[in-house]
Amino acid sequence: MLVENGKYRIETDSMGEILVPAEQLWGAQTQRSLLHFSIGDDRMPLEVYHAYGYVKKAAAKVNRDAGVLSKDKAELIMQVADEVITGQLDAEFPLFVWQTGSGTQTNMNINEVISNRAIQKVGGTLGTKDPIHPNDHVNMSQSSNDTFPTAMHIATVLEFSNHLIPSVEKLIHMMWDKAVEWVDVVKIGRTHLQDATPLTVGQEWSGYVTQLKDALQLVKNSMAGLYQLAAGGTAVGTGINTLPGFGSSISSEIAQLTGHPFVTAPNKFAAQASLDAMVNASAALRALAIALMKISNDIRWLGCGPRAGIHELNLPANEPGSSIMPGKVNPTQEEAMIMVCVQVIGNDNAIAIAGTQGNFELSTMRPIITKNVLHSSKILGDACEMWRKYSIEGITLDKQGIEKHVNESLMLVTSLSPVIGYDKASAIAHKAFAENTTLREAAISSGYITVEEYDKNIDLKKMVGDPRKDLGLNGKT
Amino acid sequence: MLVENGKYRIETDSMGEILVPAEQLWGAQTQRSLLHFSIGDDRMPLEVYHAYGYVKKAAAKVNRDAGVLSKDKAELIMQVADEVITGQLDAEFPLFVWQTGSGTQTNMNINEVISNRAIQKVGGTLGTKDPIHPNDHVNMSQSSNDTFPTAMHIATVLEFSNHLIPSVEKLIHMMWDKAVEWVDVVKIGRTHLQDATPLTVGQEWSGYVTQLKDALQLVKNSMAGLYQLAAGGTAVGTGINTLPGFGSSISSEIAQLTGHPFVTAPNKFAAQASLDAMVNASAALRALAIALMKISNDIRWLGCGPRAGIHELNLPANEPGSSIMPGKVNPTQEEAMIMVCVQVIGNDNAIAIAGTQGNFELSTMRPIITKNVLHSSKILGDACEMWRKYSIEGITLDKQGIEKHVNESLMLVTSLSPVIGYDKASAIAHKAFAENTTLREAAISSGYITVEEYDKNIDLKKMVGDPRKDLGLNGKT
Amino acid sequence: MLVENGKYRIETDSMGEILVPAEQLWGAQTQRSLLHFSIGDDRMPLEVYHAYGYVKKAAAKVNRDAGVLSKDKAELIMQVADEVITGQLDAEFPLFVWQTGSGTQTNMNINEVISNRAIQKVGGTLGTKDPIHPNDHVNMSQSSNDTFPTAMHIATVLEFSNHLIPSVEKLIHMMWDKAVEWVDVVKIGRTHLQDATPLTVGQEWSGYVTQLKDALQLVKNSMAGLYQLAAGGTAVGTGINTLPGFGSSISSEIAQLTGHPFVTAPNKFAAQASLDAMVNASAALRALAIALMKISNDIRWLGCGPRAGIHELNLPANEPGSSIMPGKVNPTQEEAMIMVCVQVIGNDNAIAIAGTQGNFELSTMRPIITKNVLHSSKILGDACEMWRKYSIEGITLDKQGIEKHVNESLMLVTSLSPVIGYDKASAIAHKAFAENTTLREAAISSGYITVEEYDKNIDLKKMVGDPRKDLGLNGKT
Amino acid sequence: MLVENGKYRIETDSMGEILVPAEQLWGAQTQRSLLHFSIGDDRMPLEVYHAYGYVKKAAAKVNRDAGVLSKDKAELIMQVADEVITGQLDAEFPLFVWQTGSGTQTNMNINEVISNRAIQKVGGTLGTKDPIHPNDHVNMSQSSNDTFPTAMHIATVLEFSNHLIPSVEKLIHMMWDKAVEWVDVVKIGRTHLQDATPLTVGQEWSGYVTQLKDALQLVKNSMAGLYQLAAGGTAVGTGINTLPGFGSSISSEIAQLTGHPFVTAPNKFAAQASLDAMVNASAALRALAIALMKISNDIRWLGCGPRAGIHELNLPANEPGSSIMPGKVNPTQEEAMIMVCVQVIGNDNAIAIAGTQGNFELSTMRPIITKNVLHSSKILGDACEMWRKYSIEGITLDKQGIEKHVNESLMLVTSLSPVIGYDKASAIAHKAFAENTTLREAAISSGYITVEEYDKNIDLKKMVGDPRKDLGLNGKT
Repeated sequence: MLVENGKYRIETDSMGEILVPAEQLWGAQTQRSLLHFSIGDDRMPLEVYHAYGYVKKAAAKVNRDAGVLSKDKAELIMQVADEVITGQLDAEFPLFVWQTGSGTQTNMNINEVISNRAIQKVGGTLGTKDPIHPNDHVNMSQSSNDTFPTAMHIATVLEFSNHLIPSVEKLIHMMWDKAVEWVDVVKIGRTHLQDATPLTVGQEWSGYVTQLKDALQLVKNSMAGLYQLAAGGTAVGTGINTLPGFGSSISSEIAQLTGHPFVTAPNKFAAQASLDAMVNASAALRALAIALMKISNDIRWLGCGPRAGIHELNLPANEPGSSIMPGKVNPTQEEAMIMVCVQVIGNDNAIAIAGTQGNFELSTMRPIITKNVLHSSKILGDACEMWRKYSIEGITLDKQGIEKHVNESLMLVTSLSPVIGYDKASAIAHKAFAENTTLREAAISSGYITVEEYDKNIDLKKMVGDPRKDLGLNGKT
Repeated sequence: MLVENGKYRIETDSMGEILVPAEQLWGAQTQRSLLHFSIGDDRMPLEVYHAYGYVKKAAAKVNRDAGVLSKDKAELIMQVADEVITGQLDAEFPLFVWQTGSGTQTNMNINEVISNRAIQKVGGTLGTKDPIHPNDHVNMSQSSNDTFPTAMHIATVLEFSNHLIPSVEKLIHMMWDKAVEWVDVVKIGRTHLQDATPLTVGQEWSGYVTQLKDALQLVKNSMAGLYQLAAGGTAVGTGINTLPGFGSSISSEIAQLTGHPFVTAPNKFAAQASLDAMVNASAALRALAIALMKISNDIRWLGCGPRAGIHELNLPANEPGSSIMPGKVNPTQEEAMIMVCVQVIGNDNAIAIAGTQGNFELSTMRPIITKNVLHSSKILGDACEMWRKYSIEGITLDKQGIEKHVNESLMLVTSLSPVIGYDKASAIAHKAFAENTTLREAAISSGYITVEEYDKNIDLKKMVGDPRKDLGLNGKT
Repeated sequence: MLVENGKYRIETDSMGEILVPAEQLWGAQTQRSLLHFSIGDDRMPLEVYHAYGYVKKAAAKVNRDAGVLSKDKAELIMQVADEVITGQLDAEFPLFVWQTGSGTQTNMNINEVISNRAIQKVGGTLGTKDPIHPNDHVNMSQSSNDTFPTAMHIATVLEFSNHLIPSVEKLIHMMWDKAVEWVDVVKIGRTHLQDATPLTVGQEWSGYVTQLKDALQLVKNSMAGLYQLAAGGTAVGTGINTLPGFGSSISSEIAQLTGHPFVTAPNKFAAQASLDAMVNASAALRALAIALMKISNDIRWLGCGPRAGIHELNLPANEPGSSIMPGKVNPTQEEAMIMVCVQVIGNDNAIAIAGTQGNFELSTMRPIITKNVLHSSKILGDACEMWRKYSIEGITLDKQGIEKHVNESLMLVTSLSPVIGYDKASAIAHKAFAENTTLREAAISSGYITVEEYDKNIDLKKMVGDPRKDLGLNGKT
Repeated sequence: MLVENGKYRIETDSMGEILVPAEQLWGAQTQRSLLHFSIGDDRMPLEVYHAYGYVKKAAAKVNRDAGVLSKDKAELIMQVADEVITGQLDAEFPLFVWQTGSGTQTNMNINEVISNRAIQKVGGTLGTKDPIHPNDHVNMSQSSNDTFPTAMHIATVLEFSNHLIPSVEKLIHMMWDKAVEWVDVVKIGRTHLQDATPLTVGQEWSGYVTQLKDALQLVKNSMAGLYQLAAGGTAVGTGINTLPGFGSSISSEIAQLTGHPFVTAPNKFAAQASLDAMVNASAALRALAIALMKISNDIRWLGCGPRAGIHELNLPANEPGSSIMPGKVNPTQEEAMIMVCVQVIGNDNAIAIAGTQGNFELSTMRPIITKNVLHSSKILGDACEMWRKYSIEGITLDKQGIEKHVNESLMLVTSLSPVIGYDKASAIAHKAFAENTTLREAAISSGYITVEEYDKNIDLKKMVGDPRKDLGLNGKT
């Protein structure tokens, strides 16, 4: 009935027949996966399917050139693969993340859809696997075991290159502009949350920029591992049912198609049994999150107030902050960033645990690692973009607050140590605090130092060293 | 222009005007949030909005009864709140998870939508806040600071009660049926992955059931903390802008509306500054995940084979397991379950970190904790359902494999220890292994024991104790 | 030679002979473990050995009463077990944590030491296993598989009861005294690190106390699982080589010896194959750490300054804070506490992962879980003690800072909302901020409210509700 | 009295006087720290103190050369620093890990001990700070804020270089020898714990070696960050109280003293406010742990048995495995390794969280990160050493088991796919399984393939590809 009325058609696999919605191109194994793995709302990221498009296209080309796949079939597969890559078939890729640990169901989803779409293009009958068979042709010379990690690496490299890295670089540039703008503004330093010796706002922000640059470099470094592709190892790494050299050829093709320097993994057994390159990519994302969390935390604390806190920075007021307190404005961009960073650390923890759980020739932790790496990268990249646009760019200095804090500080006493020794300098600081006086008053009344010496040594400009040089600008003004 | 052509209308808040899509009911603050927090694909779970529907309905009722909200306004709000609860307004709740840490934007999303929907119902003009003002009426006696955690608790209690707990209970029942069915089937025990003394399959599965029951009890216990609601504390816990007793009244209303024993939190300062009850709920979910991961791992290992592994269980063959290896069948349900469990542990790690990051009167880690607790519960509940239906229910015993393993085991020698002492028993086991003989042969040729004594003491039935009694059945058959 | 000169003696086990330092009482298996597992500096906590002393004593008693162990042998074992319990034999327990996952080597360490010490007491020859054999007598009716988790539970219950819980309770009392002392001191509230409506210091600290009480309750609740003992299950849970009822009898004995309500675990298969009760105990420790971290963070931020920060609390100055900045004082107790809390979360992560890694009838993750649970409890308990004595007890209020902050706050405007509506109140707050005036000036110049109405509504005392009632004192003064 | 009887002497700091045990060289601040931070048993690792010895020696030299420290004083400090480096003063460094977050107390411990030891050497009076003052001379041009992270980096580089890396390299070599030895031994592959196509033992172990080499490379890469030293930044990164160029000079000295390429950190603000290089080092240790855990897990599963499991490897029998089951032998080395790996992941989680918790110009998470990085490295290095010596080296193949498994496998059918297509090959495999026959029987009776074709295609040697080439040996034999 369901078939008769045109709503469904029959598809088959080695388990037998199953009904598939008539308007969809996927086949039996996709349908079984939908039925058996309806878990939560997490879907296999489309980026994985797009990356798989490159794999299928490259495989067809290599197989054609090797003479094991007819030119007609190869061309057909390559055409449909292009539709996959460009997202035209996205509606055909509905699978859940929580499926077989090898990603076979996603590979078969691609294989089935390319098969049926090719059949459709030549006017054949869906489900007949003729002229393009999902296993014998689309999957030729391949296994999920080698192509799924290949697609994972491609998807991650594209996400990093096209989204995350540019977002972080724009953020870094914006923060650097601020550092340069404020290179000479002297402020109080804080260690242990307690008043310390001064530095300039530019010096402080140069530290932020350095942290982010270093972390971004780790992300870039992690791509070296991702460039190594498992394709060619097939079932267990030995390359069964491929021609020798297939791994190198398909990697070259993928490199050419994507413009990224992919190569064949030197050892396919490691490449298929582990997910170490992805785990390392996640560690790099975590490094970025850790730096971002420290910095965004600093910034929201420096905006703490407006009247009862530290308040040295004015953060942009983007929206009302409270449903009950009128006029309240909150550091919401920083809060979102901090939560994103915490999520990335949690994702990374899941990835690390998953990374340990491979067995023998295959790690069946691929979907969870794929999902989490891509998730972390996406939310980090977007959060950097939002933070830059809606917070960093609009931050200004509360110069009044900055000056008041630095001028009242007792830790300026540090400059007296080389003159009168640490112990006497300590006594002066304690005295000023106890008597609630200025440092200058305490110093002079202590008898340890003359007015002239005090004024000569307590010089904010000298205390901050050479901020312009620290920033690689032209040094002391 | 955008307004003139009817595609947008102007909405206002204390930041000024902003364009909102004409067909949507949300207001200015929702729109600002969409603009400023477009981070990834994670949306605030609809369960939070539905839970907020109860809060708004209950608040309106209490405010009406207290005489601070007119009957007309209250009725209107309550009607629209019912539409929220039943999901009729789901399309109006588009916000991202990564937003303000207090959840204020989600509270305002609800307030704005209820306001405009009420206006719509009485034929007013959207955006005029008349007759129902989002802050003055819908949010009356409330702050996001007390109502968001209230909605978090309600949403989690409903998810646990309506989804997770029934799924786990059905799984437990199915596993218990298996335990009873197999109560007398003797198999080899394994410790350290090495052959050990025997037990019955039913005893082994009774262990699984016990682990799951204990873990589920922790989930249920965690609800005691979730029943305590922050509502009534408003901005910082003091209950500013509420009438005394509002907390108790609204909690009673919510208890009545939902059928769950919600009460007002005894200390509002803790209830708003921390998210400890949610963190504890996550710890309980993690406990469940840990038990499920151990058990599903056992089951897939017991199915390892079919010919080159342990293979004591036949797991259902639900789908082809490989794109390259014909006829391969894999323990995919167990793999999905294990990945879900790992994700829950990762989510919990994010929740724990977030739990530490509150400051002063508010924890701004609410969205991340909400998202992760609900995510963990949903995927755990669904995975239990899938696992039960598509794996546990269909598992059968490979009795041939089971018998072979237990009969060949050298660890049956344990029963000789009380007779001949540990040292001689050891010597016999080592001898049998070294000479690759049966235990019986080695024992007898050792001279330490007679044939009669051996056969009397090496009795599988006696070695497994009383499995029926262990399962609470009627004891030794 | 080594033996001849009296430095070593020969001990034997089923692997053969091995030299043991002559002055030590341990035997062959302990010596092998020392050789094969020399990993890091982590030693099996002595608490585990002391707990094992109770197990051995109780087992000997039950075996004697059951008539399977001679009275003489039983008495001898019980006497030596008392020496173990009281720490007299601590020098005989040198094993590393990173050993066999079942803890068998630690059990054998105990068995061997009791054997040799008993031999010594009766003037026998060390290593002869006569009259007390480590396996046949000291380990009678037992396996490491059931007794090691039994010892883990006993050790943890004793550590919680004798150390952690009292430390936390003393801390709670001290904090409660502060809350009561400061119940009426009005201060500014802070949400999102931004000025909010006021509360009293006592209200704030009542929140701290509530968080800690709730967390401590979770620790106490977790002991319910720890009271269940695996003893009696022996090798795989079936109780092979024990008499029926041994589990109940030994648990009763242990309960009597320790004064804690230990019972036999209702299902031995779960009790030996999982470590779920320990994982749950760790989750409770983590809950405590999360609360402590939030609170200690608050306190160090409230001491931030002394001149360029929030500074509403004076924290005790215990030691010079800087090697370079004279007179600097830092919130070091809070820093130590925060690090301890982070360590507990990391330990708990290791415990959770370990908790998933059991296989079949045994989890071989016992040593790591034992070590981490005991470590977390010890450092938390000690940190609470130090924090109470060297920080909390000495904290005083910076009343000048507190008053200045609350009086300047713009968020007092919240009290005008019920009078003039949220929108007008917002406009007033924004105006005051923009024009850098007091709230009162802005309110009155706005024309939205009269001087009289302003002064009537802006009343700090009213804004904080009823702090005494919140603390369960006698209500409004 | 205490002083009079010679048991104690008085030491002073800016907080006043305090009694110190007469026989110890430490001063007032060390004593205060001992008193206030008696938390658990964790002590600051001695490696940190030894590393600090290099810092103090190098600083004295640079200060002498710059003419700010007299030659006599400098020489004296340098002499004592050598005693610190060589461990002669270890008994003077008793501090707990859980102390001030900057490590100031440890820096002052070093400063005080060097001061008093120098005084002792010249016959002065302990505690007089004359002729060597702990702050003015030993700490000259330094702050804890820049020197503590400097010492952290030095200590970690030395631990990695002298202990961890050599241990892992020896393990890799041993595993590589095994891979080469077994390069041609064909065995069954396993994916999803299910029988798959064959590979050789050498291929499998080449995967292990590759995983370990890649992970070790990450450890080495992480040292690039550790080579950058904060020294020269002093209090907040500006270099207050140092001469320009001090950072470069001291780094050069340290490089020369240690033989490692240390350089001055290009940005001191990042170097002091973050601990990112240490967090990254921990991520590399975690990568190593993840690879080791996968591999050791594989190996213990491959030894599962001896009669009721996979059993393709014979693992060395190092000690009796059970207190109750005579003759039992367990994969205890692998269990210890797995626990060590889990601990490293837990430590890393603590480190990551700590990494986020810096504030402003200083991260006060130094002690916890130091402790955990060094702990992880030590236990990993030792575990690699034990595992190599007591397991890997002695592993042999169970050739009988290996052959049986590979010959019975149904997945050899994969080689028929290119000949008869995936669908028919599937049918054959299912038929063989259902009818419990050999693959050959099922294939031939299926009618899909002739005997000749079957025998031509099912050739184990061909299925494993070219194992010698995979290992970089001379290719196909």
